[in-house]
Amino acid sequence: MGNADLIYPSTNMECAHRVAIPPAQPFYKTLKSSLKETFLPDDPLRQFKNQPPSRKFVLGLQYFLPILEWAPRYTFQFFKSDFIAGITIASLAIPQGISYAKLAKLPPILGLYSSFVPPLVYAMLGSSKDLAVGTVAVPSLLMASMLGKEVDPVQNPHLYLNLAFTATFFAGVLQASFGFLRLGFIVDFLSHATIVGFMGGAATVVCLQQLKGLLGLKKFSTSTDIVSVMTSVFSQTHKWRWESAVLGCCFLFFLMVARFFSKKKPKFFWISAMAPLTSVILGSILVYVTHAEKHGVQVIGHLNKGLNPPSLTDLEFGSPYLHTAIKTGIITGIIALAEGIAVGRSFAMFKNYHIDGNKEMIAFGLMNIAGSCTSCYLTTGPFSRTAVNFNAGCKTAVSNIVMSTAVMITLLFLTPLFHYTPLVVLSAIIISAMLGVIDTDAAIHLWKLDKFDFAVCMSAYFGVVFGSVEIGLGVAIVLSMVRMMLFIARPRTLVLGNIPNSMIYRNMDQYPVATRVPGVLIIRIDAPIYFANASYLRERITRWINNEEDKLKELQENSLQYVILDMSAISSIDTSGISMLEEVKKNIDRRGLKLVLANPGSEVMKKLDKSNFIQDMGQEWIYLTVGEAVGACNFLLHSCKGENTRINSTAPDNNV
Amino acid sequence: MGNADLIYPSTNMECAHRVAIPPAQPFYKTLKSSLKETFLPDDPLRQFKNQPPSRKFVLGLQYFLPILEWAPRYTFQFFKSDFIAGITIASLAIPQGISYAKLAKLPPILGLYSSFVPPLVYAMLGSSKDLAVGTVAVPSLLMASMLGKEVDPVQNPHLYLNLAFTATFFAGVLQASFGFLRLGFIVDFLSHATIVGFMGGAATVVCLQQLKGLLGLKKFSTSTDIVSVMTSVFSQTHKWRWESAVLGCCFLFFLMVARFFSKKKPKFFWISAMAPLTSVILGSILVYVTHAEKHGVQVIGHLNKGLNPPSLTDLEFGSPYLHTAIKTGIITGIIALAEGIAVGRSFAMFKNYHIDGNKEMIAFGLMNIAGSCTSCYLTTGPFSRTAVNFNAGCKTAVSNIVMSTAVMITLLFLTPLFHYTPLVVLSAIIISAMLGVIDTDAAIHLWKLDKFDFAVCMSAYFGVVFGSVEIGLGVAIVLSMVRMMLFIARPRTLVLGNIPNSMIYRNMDQYPVATRVPGVLIIRIDAPIYFANASYLRERITRWINNEEDKLKELQENSLQYVILDMSAISSIDTSGISMLEEVKKNIDRRGLKLVLANPGSEVMKKLDKSNFIQDMGQEWIYLTVGEAVGACNFLLHSCKGENTRINSTAPDNNV
Repeated sequence: MGNADLIYPSTNMECAHRVAIPPAQPFYKTLKSSLKETFLPDDPLRQFKNQPPSRKFVLGLQYFLPILEWAPRYTFQFFKSDFIAGITIASLAIPQGISYAKLAKLPPILGLYSSFVPPLVYAMLGSSKDLAVGTVAVPSLLMASMLGKEVDPVQNPHLYLNLAFTATFFAGVLQASFGFLRLGFIVDFLSHATIVGFMGGAATVVCLQQLKGLLGLKKFSTSTDIVSVMTSVFSQTHKWRWESAVLGCCFLFFLMVARFFSKKKPKFFWISAMAPLTSVILGSILVYVTHAEKHGVQVIGHLNKGLNPPSLTDLEFGSPYLHTAIKTGIITGIIALAEGIAVGRSFAMFKNYHIDGNKEMIAFGLMNIAGSCTSCYLTTGPFSRTAVNFNAGCKTAVSNIVMSTAVMITLLFLTPLFHYTPLVVLSAIIISAMLGVIDTDAAIHLWKLDKFDFAVCMSAYFGVVFGSVEIGLGVAIVLSMVRMMLFIARPRTLVLGNIPNSMIYRNMDQYPVATRVPGVLIIRIDAPIYFANASYLRERITRWINNEEDKLKELQENSLQYVILDMSAISSIDTSGISMLEEVKKNIDRRGLKLVLANPGSEVMKKLDKSNFIQDMGQEWIYLTVGEAVGACNFLLHSCKGENTRINSTAPDNNV
Repeated sequence: MGNADLIYPSTNMECAHRVAIPPAQPFYKTLKSSLKETFLPDDPLRQFKNQPPSRKFVLGLQYFLPILEWAPRYTFQFFKSDFIAGITIASLAIPQGISYAKLAKLPPILGLYSSFVPPLVYAMLGSSKDLAVGTVAVPSLLMASMLGKEVDPVQNPHLYLNLAFTATFFAGVLQASFGFLRLGFIVDFLSHATIVGFMGGAATVVCLQQLKGLLGLKKFSTSTDIVSVMTSVFSQTHKWRWESAVLGCCFLFFLMVARFFSKKKPKFFWISAMAPLTSVILGSILVYVTHAEKHGVQVIGHLNKGLNPPSLTDLEFGSPYLHTAIKTGIITGIIALAEGIAVGRSFAMFKNYHIDGNKEMIAFGLMNIAGSCTSCYLTTGPFSRTAVNFNAGCKTAVSNIVMSTAVMITLLFLTPLFHYTPLVVLSAIIISAMLGVIDTDAAIHLWKLDKFDFAVCMSAYFGVVFGSVEIGLGVAIVLSMVRMMLFIARPRTLVLGNIPNSMIYRNMDQYPVATRVPGVLIIRIDAPIYFANASYLRERITRWINNEEDKLKELQENSLQYVILDMSAISSIDTSGISMLEEVKKNIDRRGLKLVLANPGSEVMKKLDKSNFIQDMGQEWIYLTVGEAVGACNFLLHSCKGENTRINSTAPDNNV
């Protein structure tokens, strides 16, 4: 037997595959491809490829103004559907808008303003066919609690209002720049579990706040946690107004029944969609007829007629509270963005069209910037309104234009009608909407699937309910980060065994039939190696080797000779990872064992080569599959003992 | 052909392996194992297994006081080595201690105090045989800059001193609690690249600060950035003292030559180890003889005789500056910990013994808590001193005790000798030590191996040099986090092809010989799936399918029929990941394709089962290897066309 065979024993096997060192790529090329992967993962430029310049211009225009893409194909059939959907969501938007503006401690008319301009902007820029634009409860509450801490909305309403516009402006700038810079993935770092918990908690808090309106109280705790609210409510039992409470409960019951019915029979979605407006009309008539406003039932009062006044000059860039406005804008902007993107994506899934998250962010951002200049506050794509829009059969963003027109007509002619609308009806509308946000099914699903995710969800929930919205959000983000850090810092390592009658090697815990290969320990690392997990992996590999040696000692078997590292799953490695491998190799050498690598990827091979690791260990110790590595080890083990046969050579050659 | 064959076509292949759903584990069991993996990855309790209680008690005592483990085996031979090493490091510790105390703007005597008590504590608790305890430059500088911002060390020396003790106390508490709570992995989140850059930058800043002593300046910039320092130096050219500068340069030259010589011939390590003390002695004699202190050469002046006074009552727990002390303690504590642990580990690697990082943290923490009560400031295991200790042939931590004793004798009898020591010699000692910390080789290595790591390193360096130590640290941490987030948010996905004449499937970019399987797209995801990368992966998989369909259209080949997801590397998955797979499946179904899974791990199988994903897709579409999955797809493709043969069936069965 020649020397070559000893060095590369698998050459006498049927298929010996070398792992080649990939040729070095020029730096700018790797940089370009990794930048592209980071910022353009969905390849938005694909459609521009191989197109004449004129076509490219049209495509580019369509990219930034999606309306240009679908408007030419718009038909009257579409318009009929969109008209019905638009009217339906307008009937929901008007009472909800007023309610949420109250929640944000802003003048109620702002809710209507915010349902007029932003939907028009979105209709031009947005790529979703189903999204209905409007204000949302949680960012409204957050705005009230963050701005309210600095400026009292009752004592200083003008400054408070201006700060709300300024916060909206910065939220828009943030959203648009996320989109332009293609940093949409930042939103992904809020995990589903934290969002479920946070939104549920915020919805609970919003409901608790409605006790004020429901019980007709005038003074109320400024804190939002359940303990303060309950103390505040039960310390004023003598001030509870039964008229208000009875009215509120009746309307809440009505709304809940309508909701329940529509949920059972999706065909009657319009019952739940129309219910809020019906409540408002009924409530207003009732108050007007019975003069209940004189008996403790608070009403909205006077609303200005007319369209949105401009508010560009109201933005408080020089105010000492600018810092607060920016902070509020950033936090509410991210929350609103997360909700809007998630809603847009879910409905796009149903109808099987694609939504570009970054493009949507630009649309949301510009819509809020435009809104902040026209007396609107933060808007996004609320789930409830979008679901109604979808169920009402909308075809394109024209339904937003229809809604906007309906709101415009309301603003121009109908605002006096809301004078007698009782606040308690608005409270009932908010509670009924919020009860739908508390997603117990999702929490149960989390519990079943992943206990840690459930714990994260519950922490966010209780953080909001017992602390404050900011505390809950902080807890949620910190827990998401911790979860992520644990994922990274503790990757899985496995010991592989041979599946009998094959040359497949698999995790011995998962496949109890898998058997150990005598004298060989096969370890698989199931994650990229980098600084955050390098020392853990070094310790863990040492521990596997220790355990194996102990076990062999107990069983009085032959001692360990080879350690095979299955590197298939190590997609990338940094300098700390390379040092770790060098240390592991030294450690293994010192124990008198031999390190063998199986199936390293191209990036790993490149870096191992550059750091002279491959030259140190010898390229003949790197195999394409674990099976081939084991084959070579066995060959050497037995040829050393003078037996020139391979264990497992009778098995079919199904290397893995 | 029966129905069974159609459903599970690979049964007529030689080896058809089912992927079983692992049996559900009780919750407490999975929790226990994952907690163990998170907090006890090195399994420190292994040695306690199957031991009688009395032995367990002894082992437990030895665990917390490693001295009990090695002291009984201590021999006179060991002592001879340790004695030489101890004296050598004492000769380095005394001048370095005084220099670093000056750097921290603390009384010079504190440098000696800090080389007396902490080494004794470490000798009992530490598990490293080579670590020499002492103060270090970068945390000293950091302490000066962070505390100096709040309290002026010249105008209010007493408060400044007390705050330094308090900061040391909190650093100790933090370090010990990291150890007790087994949170050592937090230190791993400072990547090697950031540490190289940060330490290099800090060393540069420390050198720049020495221009004050070297040029004999009295006034100096309080900022540490290069621009302020250079402005400060060159605006006072008329105040430069040539006597000081000449003396400093001579000693610096001497120290550098000694260093260079020792580096060339490691046998003469003691030349560089003794050089600082020699410089101090020569410098003092020179000043004493020439009365240079009257000609602009500043000297240390009076040092108190006597051992460390207690300082427990000096800790400022009620001070308004407590917040600053805690912050300083946390930041300097982490930096000191990172250095100490890294140094301990590296030298343990050389001598092939194991160091338990968490145990070391407890030792560092208790040593600093004890130090803060006995007039010491922050200590750790400096690299330079430990390297000298190692080269001097130390055997155990007794060398620390010897050093400590030597320092004690100095404190009791020899402090007056330092009266005439010129400050410029201390500056020269610091510069010569710091030039060793600037690790250009490591930076070049980073450039060669990983450009991003190099960029991180340089940002940290320039952040420190042009901004401040805190800015540099902030930049370093943020960049490490960004790097980590990018690693997570953008995992690698690959398209696999068939290696000819085998049934091995590998990345087509890495192995250009690999060929596509007609009608089948094989995608491999090389990372765990969770919330941070779920949406990216969804987009990316869609893009692979789009690209493949475009390519097939161009080539006018048969259209795509099957998408195989190789799940080998997906070690874990969270609820967002499961939702992502569900969406991908819907998407693939809607295109009229069929999703096939290959080799999901046990956790993935469990969660897919719990979420009813497996029931939805049918367990017959899950295969153990990509090869088997391709085999089944081909079988179905061809049996549908009425051709009952399989492509690739002539190749040997090396499934992967």
